[in-house]
Amino acid sequence: MSFLENSASIVAAPQQQIRGRISLVGAGPGAPDLMTLRAIRCLETADIVFYDRLVDPEALAFAGPAARRIFVGKEVGANSWPQVRIDAEIVAAALQGQHVVRLKSGDPSIFGRAAEEIAAARAHGIEVEIVSGITAASAAAASLCQPLTQRGATDRVVLATATCQAGKEISDLRDLARPGTTLVFYMAMRQLAALSQQLVAAGVNHDHPVTIATNISRPTFRALSTTLATMAADCTEARISNPAVVIVQLGKEEMQWGLESPIVPSWVFAQA
Amino acid sequence: MSFLENSASIVAAPQQQIRGRISLVGAGPGAPDLMTLRAIRCLETADIVFYDRLVDPEALAFAGPAARRIFVGKEVGANSWPQVRIDAEIVAAALQGQHVVRLKSGDPSIFGRAAEEIAAARAHGIEVEIVSGITAASAAAASLCQPLTQRGATDRVVLATATCQAGKEISDLRDLARPGTTLVFYMAMRQLAALSQQLVAAGVNHDHPVTIATNISRPTFRALSTTLATMAADCTEARISNPAVVIVQLGKEEMQWGLESPIVPSWVFAQA
Repeated sequence: MSFLENSASIVAAPQQQIRGRISLVGAGPGAPDLMTLRAIRCLETADIVFYDRLVDPEALAFAGPAARRIFVGKEVGANSWPQVRIDAEIVAAALQGQHVVRLKSGDPSIFGRAAEEIAAARAHGIEVEIVSGITAASAAAASLCQPLTQRGATDRVVLATATCQAGKEISDLRDLARPGTTLVFYMAMRQLAALSQQLVAAGVNHDHPVTIATNISRPTFRALSTTLATMAADCTEARISNPAVVIVQLGKEEMQWGLESPIVPSWVFAQA
Repeated sequence: MSFLENSASIVAAPQQQIRGRISLVGAGPGAPDLMTLRAIRCLETADIVFYDRLVDPEALAFAGPAARRIFVGKEVGANSWPQVRIDAEIVAAALQGQHVVRLKSGDPSIFGRAAEEIAAARAHGIEVEIVSGITAASAAAASLCQPLTQRGATDRVVLATATCQAGKEISDLRDLARPGTTLVFYMAMRQLAALSQQLVAAGVNHDHPVTIATNISRPTFRALSTTLATMAADCTEARISNPAVVIVQLGKEEMQWGLESPIVPSWVFAQA
């Protein structure tokens, strides 16, 4: 084993002066008051902020008036700036001595493309950190007042995408359909029919309840209560598209898995 | 489908005057500045706070000086107060007209026993809400500067416990060992040997890298880099116990799954 206690600097670059630094900051699901204090303080000291399409203007307002704000127009599954351009620009700004905040919706560690930005920073000996944000699954559970785990019923939470990379076919998701699991699919709104087919093929009843939450934590929050078989058509009719999460709770076998879950019917759709 | 827009009240209890309310608030992983603004504001207006053993005293300090603070001594897998007593006390305080904050480490929605407290509140017609917190997996990823997903390598995050209920045998975890998955086990420190056996039985190499993070986001944060085969002995030697998370990253098959992952060796153990 190797055992490493705290080390103050994330990347030690001997013989090289590190001038700026990069903070990958989670803006959370949308509501500015769901940001952490650390994220807000980080924004306050930023010289330049590169922010995504889904970041709320009020979140951006935590940055000081002198901070430059650069819109990278990135949304889930569709980049206005290619990732390599973002990587290059944040590195260039840090090399000029700036404190760069890369402000991302949700949590940078979960479907946030943080790995590429960390690799780019490290390749240039630039100090980089992640500041966590509330991820959509957690915020959806809070808005719905429906926990992702329930003792005795669900002891696993799976955060998944239907496709790993844009343009690729849907992943094989059948192994995810296990009793005792809460499944939360991100960026899945274009694959609902395929998702439904796979979970039914894996043994989940076609009328198993599904909840789809969109605009989570925002004033425009909506939640749709539907079933595996009908969710694709229902979302089309209700005009729900990304960003949204699809929540499927599969209770333990002794709780009539495949029939109506003991959890879902009690869901109450509350104010975000 | 049923489609419900925002409704202002979470539980409508006709014919009954609702006097208090209950907020289930996530204190996050430990560092007080990893709490959300909403959690802090909720604490500021609390009349009474029921808090867990793992909640930082600085987090509790966000509550006003007049707020009563009740230590329920609860830790993962070992309750000083039985859950039913907590349920009864928070309900009793709310029925007296108080704003009750139930302050939990991490995120109330993830392994937080929130479902029982919500059910107790609803049974008495008491308004209840969840305020999200940063869960340990997310904070560990940030402290380690190692995202939980990496495009092309991991497109699933599984948050799991080794046992669903205290005293029960270890769950069958073999189906979790799938390429493209980041596994994060909570409350697993007493089941490391069994966990290792199961993942090896599922096809993961015995020398597959594992990271164990403890005291996440606190000044006493430590991370141990070990392997599946040796993690139990290594943790004993290093005296790492709960609370901690066990992180196992399984890359896609084309990335030499079962051999050295392309992700883990680059991990850098940074300041919390």
